[in-house]
Amino acid sequence: MAPMTTRGFTSDNASGAHPAVLAALAAAAEGHAPSYGADPVTAALDARAREVFGPDATILPVFNGTGANVVALGAMLQKWDAVLTSEHAHLATDESTAPQLVAGAAVRTLPAPDGKVDVADVAAVLAADDGSVHHARPAALSLTQSTELGTVYRPEELAGLVAAAHGHGASVHVDGARLANAAARLGTSLAALTTAHGVDVVSFGATKNGALFGDAIVVLDPALVEPVARLRKASTQLASKMRFVSAQLLALLTDELWRTTAQHANDAADHLAALLRSELGLEPVHPVEANAVFLPVPPAAVGAVTAQLPVLAWDRPAGVLRAVCSFDTTEEDVQALVSGLVRILG
Amino acid sequence: MAPMTTRGFTSDNASGAHPAVLAALAAAAEGHAPSYGADPVTAALDARAREVFGPDATILPVFNGTGANVVALGAMLQKWDAVLTSEHAHLATDESTAPQLVAGAAVRTLPAPDGKVDVADVAAVLAADDGSVHHARPAALSLTQSTELGTVYRPEELAGLVAAAHGHGASVHVDGARLANAAARLGTSLAALTTAHGVDVVSFGATKNGALFGDAIVVLDPALVEPVARLRKASTQLASKMRFVSAQLLALLTDELWRTTAQHANDAADHLAALLRSELGLEPVHPVEANAVFLPVPPAAVGAVTAQLPVLAWDRPAGVLRAVCSFDTTEEDVQALVSGLVRILG
Amino acid sequence: MAPMTTRGFTSDNASGAHPAVLAALAAAAEGHAPSYGADPVTAALDARAREVFGPDATILPVFNGTGANVVALGAMLQKWDAVLTSEHAHLATDESTAPQLVAGAAVRTLPAPDGKVDVADVAAVLAADDGSVHHARPAALSLTQSTELGTVYRPEELAGLVAAAHGHGASVHVDGARLANAAARLGTSLAALTTAHGVDVVSFGATKNGALFGDAIVVLDPALVEPVARLRKASTQLASKMRFVSAQLLALLTDELWRTTAQHANDAADHLAALLRSELGLEPVHPVEANAVFLPVPPAAVGAVTAQLPVLAWDRPAGVLRAVCSFDTTEEDVQALVSGLVRILG
Amino acid sequence: MAPMTTRGFTSDNASGAHPAVLAALAAAAEGHAPSYGADPVTAALDARAREVFGPDATILPVFNGTGANVVALGAMLQKWDAVLTSEHAHLATDESTAPQLVAGAAVRTLPAPDGKVDVADVAAVLAADDGSVHHARPAALSLTQSTELGTVYRPEELAGLVAAAHGHGASVHVDGARLANAAARLGTSLAALTTAHGVDVVSFGATKNGALFGDAIVVLDPALVEPVARLRKASTQLASKMRFVSAQLLALLTDELWRTTAQHANDAADHLAALLRSELGLEPVHPVEANAVFLPVPPAAVGAVTAQLPVLAWDRPAGVLRAVCSFDTTEEDVQALVSGLVRILG
Repeated sequence: MAPMTTRGFTSDNASGAHPAVLAALAAAAEGHAPSYGADPVTAALDARAREVFGPDATILPVFNGTGANVVALGAMLQKWDAVLTSEHAHLATDESTAPQLVAGAAVRTLPAPDGKVDVADVAAVLAADDGSVHHARPAALSLTQSTELGTVYRPEELAGLVAAAHGHGASVHVDGARLANAAARLGTSLAALTTAHGVDVVSFGATKNGALFGDAIVVLDPALVEPVARLRKASTQLASKMRFVSAQLLALLTDELWRTTAQHANDAADHLAALLRSELGLEPVHPVEANAVFLPVPPAAVGAVTAQLPVLAWDRPAGVLRAVCSFDTTEEDVQALVSGLVRILG
Repeated sequence: MAPMTTRGFTSDNASGAHPAVLAALAAAAEGHAPSYGADPVTAALDARAREVFGPDATILPVFNGTGANVVALGAMLQKWDAVLTSEHAHLATDESTAPQLVAGAAVRTLPAPDGKVDVADVAAVLAADDGSVHHARPAALSLTQSTELGTVYRPEELAGLVAAAHGHGASVHVDGARLANAAARLGTSLAALTTAHGVDVVSFGATKNGALFGDAIVVLDPALVEPVARLRKASTQLASKMRFVSAQLLALLTDELWRTTAQHANDAADHLAALLRSELGLEPVHPVEANAVFLPVPPAAVGAVTAQLPVLAWDRPAGVLRAVCSFDTTEEDVQALVSGLVRILG
Repeated sequence: MAPMTTRGFTSDNASGAHPAVLAALAAAAEGHAPSYGADPVTAALDARAREVFGPDATILPVFNGTGANVVALGAMLQKWDAVLTSEHAHLATDESTAPQLVAGAAVRTLPAPDGKVDVADVAAVLAADDGSVHHARPAALSLTQSTELGTVYRPEELAGLVAAAHGHGASVHVDGARLANAAARLGTSLAALTTAHGVDVVSFGATKNGALFGDAIVVLDPALVEPVARLRKASTQLASKMRFVSAQLLALLTDELWRTTAQHANDAADHLAALLRSELGLEPVHPVEANAVFLPVPPAAVGAVTAQLPVLAWDRPAGVLRAVCSFDTTEEDVQALVSGLVRILG
Repeated sequence: MAPMTTRGFTSDNASGAHPAVLAALAAAAEGHAPSYGADPVTAALDARAREVFGPDATILPVFNGTGANVVALGAMLQKWDAVLTSEHAHLATDESTAPQLVAGAAVRTLPAPDGKVDVADVAAVLAADDGSVHHARPAALSLTQSTELGTVYRPEELAGLVAAAHGHGASVHVDGARLANAAARLGTSLAALTTAHGVDVVSFGATKNGALFGDAIVVLDPALVEPVARLRKASTQLASKMRFVSAQLLALLTDELWRTTAQHANDAADHLAALLRSELGLEPVHPVEANAVFLPVPPAAVGAVTAQLPVLAWDRPAGVLRAVCSFDTTEEDVQALVSGLVRILG
């Protein structure tokens, strides 16, 4: 078997596992434990989640981010409902038909320059709904934090968006596959970006931030606990040996390991962006506010770069590459990428 | 956090993880690797799966058994189709509405004394279908091996069932959450219970046989590879850091570790059944052919037994308990269970 | 084009249209009217439905019985729910995968000798549900009145069944494709078989009782009006020129035309059954309580009978034929059928 | 009951029924006929459809346009597929979640100035698909003819669009709720706009063109007949007394009645547009190529106009009204509308 030496920036899901997460997993592997979440690790995680997200929070571990998103939405939405989200949302672009199949939702996208939807657009779409049965009812808003374009909603933006949604009777979901990166960047708690604003349900990501697999649905509206728990099973996202998901999540929520790992990735992205400016005179396409850097290159060069360097061709016709930093990105990784770009583009 | 000392027999998903599986996981955790299955561990697993299941086999790792079952079936079935299965099938009784929601299938159950469907019943139902659009088309047969009642289909039974299904144009799925236990019991290869008979798709279980999580869909009909791969994503069952599922499966498929672990569990079940006969004069409700023992007890005693001993109340009104042995069941575990039963029932 | 001379008993959906229904349709065809139910015919129907089914009733016309059933159930059930119904229910046997696809429901069948489920079975299944997420939640009971086997639930049976369902938090749906036949037989109002017992939603059939097409969902639980209205659209069952469905329903609800037509069909069935006894010594397989007669014949004769006479082969292996009488069945029709049977069987 | 005197232009589904259609319905109502399409009227319709749409065509009557669209698409698409369509498509805006629920499809919209998608956009989206399982596979293109904005695809545009779709392996569906209006405008046969270009499936509308209810799925790709027939039932769109849908469709396909009625509506739209120009100096917002006229008015006047005149507020903020003419629109109807507009706006 070939060694796994392909270090890179194509995605933070190409990174490995944090030693503390692995250790927690090994510790949980000893002995027997009740299945489906009745184990002591999951109980400890639940207690911790209440400390982190507030006393009304309930955490339900799932296998992955798509699972977290569509179970959360499916629990909020009826068969005749639609979710509003960014045109760049993972939900809209990278989850195949899971939102339709599992959540049963129509997905309606809004323009999102720099990855963030505008509160005026959200309010306009919701206000325009006439309550007619002819249109899928816009019953939820899904916000990605940090966004797919590496930007971050500020607390005041979140407050406005939640108010606009709730004002029209729509629920709010946060796709927090990289919520840790946003909180690390803004220097806030996780609750300050979710619970504090009245968000209803959060997909809390671990996979991209040091875990081997596993994310969680953090339910902040208690009325949604039963629907999420039911749909988690019906959608195939209920782990039998749940302690192995819970142990990873608990490790990340202990002593804010999530912040340490996310901060490392954010710092690496800042460093990369600085070097791109200084060495190549390149200005990132979007503000670097989390752990991703979007690089503008001549469209003709996209093929050569992605053939030689571990970055993703984000938009070939427009000449945009994506480099995502991870909890384990090293100075050598960054230097090697910049050197390679200088060699090819310079 | 309380220690995980609840050793027991409620299910083989209450057991821990095999050291070799944990070691493989730790080894895979170092460094980066391409996501979604483009990594070297998954490539090695795929090669191994072809050795084990035959040159036309393709293995697609998923998160869990329900995921494997409903993705496999959903790939075989159109929106107007039904699957035939045992009245005791996990698919029919313990997967909530996942078969309906994800696979889009109607589930039609057949009587299954001792957990096995009868070829005559299968043939009769398929022959009775008049091709009318009014009835959901019976387009697939799902067989659990070993069964939910701890029994095993013999090769000649499988041959007959596959022939009956294929003869009427229906595909065949094997729910092999405990396929290893069946092959260990019968002393056959895994292919001898699947590929050899023309089975179309197999859910190959690892979670209950030493893994932390993870199962696989083994596609034997090449025409189903694309549908399974598409639906694996659309159903939320595609792992981004797939090497962590693949590494576990590869460990189990290396040097037939799956057989060692399954044999251990089967032997423990035999030992338990023998002690029940000798110490309590109890004859298991179903033949003990895999790793589960179904115990007949007075209905009035079910509450007392399950309150004090780690076994499952399978059928309270009828007075049936279930004890499932695992790869890590010890002599002490068995002795403790028997002693407890003697104390309560004797 | 060949004349439509195939008079017969295969089903009451092979009959034509009642002159009063046709006249109402022609009257409604003049001029323009607002679409989707905002027309005066639908308003008149709604008022009439409140007189017939009670002041809390809301009637929502749909295209057909399958539509009525699955929209009603889909409005009652969440994505993780199951409906309990008779093993002979149209819902279970003759609606393809519509319950799964449109209602999103798992269908769980109960034994039903003579077509009626037993209150003890219903209570047992509901009581056995442990609230676990592993099983589809049994959240609704669907009763067919009159049943698919031509029998009728008595008011006291309905009261018991509704109490059993409601007592466990399950809703009650009545598939009333032939509700008129039951009410005519029992000499009761339509409300006496539905509203009076706390039924939540009724599929009220018109197609089989003199209409050209069209049935209605009568919502008795006001909380279900919005879900039914939303799902009626999302399931394709919302008619744009709704007055043409409403006009037919209104005609049938005017001066109890529904009773006249259903009584005629019931009387014809009684007459047929009497002749079968007197002329052939045949005792119907099930009590003749509505408009259907199930005839026992030698299995070997099924082919010959159905080739020559307009009756349905209900169960070929068992030798059971079905003859359904319609609002327009004539004495000649009955005589011809009996003569034919005497000729073939006698 | 109030008289149905609300003559108007809000939609062509507010019109009545053509006398020839009503007569055909009455004729079909006499006597019995086999159900579910085995009747002589449906057989005659099928033969006629082959004459009209070509020898490979199969016509399957359904209840309404939404049913035709989503059954057609659901038969073409797998659970992981998306359909491309105009941002103004009925499918995208006015069918609630039916495409998601019944067809199981993700809906991806393309810009459509004047209601028509651009072949370059279609080709670009299809070419951009990398075959990855992450994205819903763009497997079908749905074109509305005439469009929701009252415009018409020319034969050469259709040829290009079909070629672009087929070239990338995507199927083509035509939503022909108003196909008759397009063919009447262009002076072509129905086949010249569908079969001639290799379209795979057509929703052929009757409801808006003189029928009481009912549309049809015309399947031009024989491989799709079985899927459409199966899904028609599973989606609740199979009429039991099918002759009553077939009779209406047959009346419209006899002696090209569809063209007479559509031409009348188109002519009325032309007349209305001409008067708007001459009397009010108003230029329609979109070319008037079928039976709809989109009127630009001051946004502040939308409320007053729609309160007093039978037209639809299409876009309140932009100040756009819609007036749709029908097969039974009269000179008096047009004059009254223009007079009213002069009174309010002039």
